[in-house]
Amino acid sequence: MSPAHPSSVKPAFVRPLNFRDGRIDMGHGAGGRASAQLIRELFVAAFDNEWLRQGNDQAAFAPLAQGLGERMVMATDAHVVSPLFFPGGDIGSLAVHGTVNDVAMAGARPSYLSASFILEESFPLADLRRIVESMAAASHACGVPIVTGDTKVVERGKGDGVFITTNGIGVVPAGIHIDGSQARPGDVVLLSGTIGEHGVAIMSQREGLGFETQIRSDSAALHTLVADMLAVTPRVRVLRDPTRGGLATTLNEIAGQSGVGMRIQERAIPVLPQVDAACELLGLDPLYVANEGKLVAICASGDAPQLLAAMRAHPLGVAAARIGEVVEDAHGFVQIETKFGGRRIADWLSGEQLPRIC
Amino acid sequence: MSPAHPSSVKPAFVRPLNFRDGRIDMGHGAGGRASAQLIRELFVAAFDNEWLRQGNDQAAFAPLAQGLGERMVMATDAHVVSPLFFPGGDIGSLAVHGTVNDVAMAGARPSYLSASFILEESFPLADLRRIVESMAAASHACGVPIVTGDTKVVERGKGDGVFITTNGIGVVPAGIHIDGSQARPGDVVLLSGTIGEHGVAIMSQREGLGFETQIRSDSAALHTLVADMLAVTPRVRVLRDPTRGGLATTLNEIAGQSGVGMRIQERAIPVLPQVDAACELLGLDPLYVANEGKLVAICASGDAPQLLAAMRAHPLGVAAARIGEVVEDAHGFVQIETKFGGRRIADWLSGEQLPRIC
Repeated sequence: MSPAHPSSVKPAFVRPLNFRDGRIDMGHGAGGRASAQLIRELFVAAFDNEWLRQGNDQAAFAPLAQGLGERMVMATDAHVVSPLFFPGGDIGSLAVHGTVNDVAMAGARPSYLSASFILEESFPLADLRRIVESMAAASHACGVPIVTGDTKVVERGKGDGVFITTNGIGVVPAGIHIDGSQARPGDVVLLSGTIGEHGVAIMSQREGLGFETQIRSDSAALHTLVADMLAVTPRVRVLRDPTRGGLATTLNEIAGQSGVGMRIQERAIPVLPQVDAACELLGLDPLYVANEGKLVAICASGDAPQLLAAMRAHPLGVAAARIGEVVEDAHGFVQIETKFGGRRIADWLSGEQLPRIC
Repeated sequence: MSPAHPSSVKPAFVRPLNFRDGRIDMGHGAGGRASAQLIRELFVAAFDNEWLRQGNDQAAFAPLAQGLGERMVMATDAHVVSPLFFPGGDIGSLAVHGTVNDVAMAGARPSYLSASFILEESFPLADLRRIVESMAAASHACGVPIVTGDTKVVERGKGDGVFITTNGIGVVPAGIHIDGSQARPGDVVLLSGTIGEHGVAIMSQREGLGFETQIRSDSAALHTLVADMLAVTPRVRVLRDPTRGGLATTLNEIAGQSGVGMRIQERAIPVLPQVDAACELLGLDPLYVANEGKLVAICASGDAPQLLAAMRAHPLGVAAARIGEVVEDAHGFVQIETKFGGRRIADWLSGEQLPRIC
């Protein structure tokens, strides 16, 4: 399906978009002149790269992986976070970070992104521009251009402002084989920092809660942290970002994929005091709250010290910690050794604790 | 953001999904056990490939383009078509064909797809399964696997059943340089078949119109047609599928990108009689009605006869026709020589003639 072609609209026929109090209408999704104008004056202007300027229905580029033993990866994420703007980010920056991170969790260097927008009729153009500019800033900061895209519009009441789906591709360097199935008994579980900020930031905003210290989402792109880690040892076995479902669910996923158990020391898991307090107030367990700028790494115990040192030397890993071990367990249980010396099983998230968190 | 990991759910804890009268609930998007079950019992079961079975947050594969002079392409499309089911297809098959076609219009062989779903709470699982199975069938028929994906759920009234965003990547063979900017005065404009079926099928369904002969969407994957065309001449200059905005808008886009005009013979444009009649009834101009299984090709006049022959030899090109020429025109006008001997300018689609057509 054609997005409209920005380079080919004759500007003489069109008044500029009104970014002060204009709104999205159905014509912006019809594929004609209004679509082309939106693409040219908003998306191409903000994302600003050679591929979008060409105005084709796809982006073409040189082959990504050319070295011996390199592989490619692709990842996609739909973003429906509500509210659209929250402390520490918005749906635009989140849509960039989320997909960059999914690519990076294979140990890959992210190369290119695509972005598809589903807009609700009457959505304010001012808000859309704010989101798109935030996306552009995140993309530039990551060094990963948004090279192709699409825009659709649905009637009022058939969407919710804006949904953004991003897709990313990247290259896994030779010698890197990271996979959820590679955890082995005796391995060490590392966590790159404090948990729970993203989910708590969203829930606080949604519930209208004001805490003394504002809790900001940890939304961030982790690809340079991953690169620093792989520079000290290519033997990392598993990487994953504990997003929806939180740390506990992510550990359960990995345990299931690898056919192992985990033993996690609760006291070793870093949580900001204000997140702890907010979770108590909101009735949430930080172990199940989404993160958007953290990763779990599993490696052989001999590799753990240098990997942890590399993580702590990166701005996004200063609070990195060793939080537990991989153990043999036919049931695939994730056991938590509590702060009080007890033990409990941390199961998968069940139910809908935090809807539309990303 | 993690999709949940299907391989790692312990089936003993979960009752199978109820595909007869079950419905999507918010838990299916929360990233925990219910999400993992939906992915395992629906998406992985239907799409059935090694990448999804691995249960990672991304798919890894061998480098796509390895030959000298090859390039890669990426394309994305959000699909919000309403109704979800229509004569000749549904949102699932459309989401596969649309993105396969955007990749193919660069002259590329499509290699892999991703798919992101935004589901509305209470959407029937039976409908979702029907859509996913249609997508799987289209993907298998195209030979392009869906290797990674994501699922989100929004509250009732914040979406519209299901939206599907697909992303495709592929490889452009060496020696192929197809781009909207390459049309030159003297070139010939070819069209692969009859226009208007997709838009008319959707509109008829939406308006509850019953025609004597049911009009079916032309939704189809065009990559094998493109391959057959490029096998007879790699010198095709422009390829594009006239989707939203229809043939007239697509020709305007290309004219603008290439800085040329077009002269099109209306009598040469194939339109089914029942589509003509339906357009009259619905107040539509077939030139602006969306197609989902047609392409426009522009080539040097010397290459046109063999290219047209190759198109006609393919099942999706039997009604292919030469419909006009590229001309010099500083204004970039697309002129239509009407059936009655007159001339008119076919401008871009303006307004919102056909909302949510794809």
